[in-house]
Amino acid sequence: MMHPVLNSPPLPGVPRNRRVMVAVSGGIDSTALLHALVGSGFRKLVVVHLDHGLRGRAGAGDAVFVKKLARRYALPFIGGKADVAGLARARKISIETAAREARYRFFAKCARETRCRTLVLAHHADDQVETFLFNLMRGGGTGMGGMRPRAVRAIDGVKLEILRPWLGVWRMEIAEYAAREKLRYREDATNASPDHTRNRIRSRILPMLAQEFGRAVTKALWRAADVLAAQQEWIDEVLPPAGDELPVSGLRALPEALQRIAIHEWLRRHHTPQISYRLVETVREMVPAEATKAKVNLPAGRYARRRAGVLFVEGGRR
Amino acid sequence: MMHPVLNSPPLPGVPRNRRVMVAVSGGIDSTALLHALVGSGFRKLVVVHLDHGLRGRAGAGDAVFVKKLARRYALPFIGGKADVAGLARARKISIETAAREARYRFFAKCARETRCRTLVLAHHADDQVETFLFNLMRGGGTGMGGMRPRAVRAIDGVKLEILRPWLGVWRMEIAEYAAREKLRYREDATNASPDHTRNRIRSRILPMLAQEFGRAVTKALWRAADVLAAQQEWIDEVLPPAGDELPVSGLRALPEALQRIAIHEWLRRHHTPQISYRLVETVREMVPAEATKAKVNLPAGRYARRRAGVLFVEGGRR
Repeated sequence: MMHPVLNSPPLPGVPRNRRVMVAVSGGIDSTALLHALVGSGFRKLVVVHLDHGLRGRAGAGDAVFVKKLARRYALPFIGGKADVAGLARARKISIETAAREARYRFFAKCARETRCRTLVLAHHADDQVETFLFNLMRGGGTGMGGMRPRAVRAIDGVKLEILRPWLGVWRMEIAEYAAREKLRYREDATNASPDHTRNRIRSRILPMLAQEFGRAVTKALWRAADVLAAQQEWIDEVLPPAGDELPVSGLRALPEALQRIAIHEWLRRHHTPQISYRLVETVREMVPAEATKAKVNLPAGRYARRRAGVLFVEGGRR
Repeated sequence: MMHPVLNSPPLPGVPRNRRVMVAVSGGIDSTALLHALVGSGFRKLVVVHLDHGLRGRAGAGDAVFVKKLARRYALPFIGGKADVAGLARARKISIETAAREARYRFFAKCARETRCRTLVLAHHADDQVETFLFNLMRGGGTGMGGMRPRAVRAIDGVKLEILRPWLGVWRMEIAEYAAREKLRYREDATNASPDHTRNRIRSRILPMLAQEFGRAVTKALWRAADVLAAQQEWIDEVLPPAGDELPVSGLRALPEALQRIAIHEWLRRHHTPQISYRLVETVREMVPAEATKAKVNLPAGRYARRRAGVLFVEGGRR
C-alpha cells in the first residue's frame, strides 16, 4: 500500500507509458522513489546512475547495487563514472559545483542515448529546505528560492524536463515507506554530499532552529522556498536573457513593474550594492525610445550607460 | 563629520526644505538618525513619538526625553500614548501586531495634523536581517522579503510615504556614529520589542549563524532580504488587488507569466497546499474569454470555480 503523502501516482500528469529516466544513487530516497514508480505502474523507466568518483570502492559498490536493482525490476540501466575531484581542480570550482555539472552532463548524455526527455529526481522536502537555506547563506546570487517540482533545463543542447515528485514528502516519511516495504539500499550513498555548508545546515542549523522555534519552522521554511522558487522561475521567464548588456527594446516590451524587476536583477548581477527604488527608476529613464538620458551614476564610481540599443555598466572597480 | 555609510544627505532625492516627520523612540537608532538629518540641513522636521504603554514609567521617561530633544533642535514635537496590551487583548492579536497597528494609526493622525505626508523611520541593516528571518520563520504568509527603503502605505485614508534611509547601515556603525557625536539616548527604548521570536533571532540565531558560516552570512541575508522585498513589492504592484475572488478580466490583461504569479499568490492566500506548476496552469485554463472550463479540483476536496467573471474557491475543509 502506498502511503498517502507519497503521492500515488507519483508523477501527476505523466502517462504511465511515457519513457522516463530515474536518477538512482542507491541511497534510500532514490531507491524508494524507484520502488514507488514501479509500484504505480510506470513501465518504461530507465535507471541512470553516476559514480562521482568521490567515494572510491564504496562508489563502485553503489553502482553495482543500482545495476542489480534495475535488473531485478527488469529495467534498462545506464551507468557512468566521473572524476569530480579532478574536474573541480581543473576548472577551479567547488566539489559541489563540479558534481552537479558532471551529473547534468551525464543526464544529458543518457537523454540522447535513450531519446528520453524526462528525468525524475528524488529530492524531498528536507532537501528543499536545506537547499533554500544553503542559497540564502551563500548570498542569493542565483536562484533565491528552492527547487521546483517541474523544471526544464537545456544541457549540452538537450532540453530536459526535470520532475521532482517528492519535494513535498519529508525524509521521515520516505524512511517509514522504506521500512514498511522492507527496501534495501546503500547506507552511505544518500548523504555523500561533499559540501560542508550543506552538512552543517542539516546537522546543526536546522535542529537548532527547530529547538528555538518548534518543528513548525521547517514547514515554514519549506513554504517560503516553494513560493520563492515559483516567483523566481516566473520572473526568470519574463525577463530578457541574462547577460552583461540589457537590450532596451526588450525592456520596453515589458510592463513597468517588470522593467523594474529586470533592471534590479541586472544591476544585482553587476554586483551593484544597495540598489534603491530611486536608482532603478533613474536607470529606467534611459528606456523610452525618446529618452535623452544615456548615463546614470552607480555606486562605487561606476556608470550605467545606454548606447546602440543596450544598457551596459562601465567604470569603477569590480 | 558624517560617516560615509551614514549617507550624506541621508534622504537622497528629498529636498531639505520638505516637511518630514521623523519617528523617534529615544533609543540610539532614531536619536542618531534625527541628529544626522538635522546635521545634513533638513529644516522642517517634525518629531513624532508614541508611548506604547508597555514600559510603564520608563515609557513616560522616553517621551519626556524625546520631547526635550526636539526642543533642543527647535523642532515641533507630537507625542501620543497607546494601550497596546489592551488593544492586543481586545482584538486577540499579538502584542507586536497591536504595537505596529497603534504606531501606524498614530503616524496617520500626525500626518493629518501636520499635513505632512513623509515619515522617516530609523530601521537599519540589522533590523532588516532580523525582520527577514522573522518573516521566514513565521511561514511567509505575507511579505516574504524585508523592508523597503521607500514604501507608500495608506492608513486610515492617509497616504504616507515611508522612508528608511538607514536600511543599509549596520547597528555597529550607528553605535560608532553615536559615540563619535557623543549623543545621549535612552538605553532601553530601542530594544523594547515585546516579541520573543525577534529577540531570539537577535540574541541566538544570528550569532549562531555567524559562528557557523562567518560574518559574511549576515550580509548575505541582508542581500536576500533586499532582493526579495523588491520582488515582492513589484509583484504586489502588478497583481490584481488581493481578495477572495480573482477577477478574470484583470488576469487576462496580464502577460502569461504574471497570470501564473497572480494565480499562485491567490491559491496561496487560500491556503492551498503544494501548489504545482501544473495546478496553476490548469486554473489558468479558466482565464481566456472563450474558456469552457469553469471548475478545477484543488487539494483537500476543494474547487476553484469561474462564475460571473471571477475565480473563487469553494468546498472542503478550511
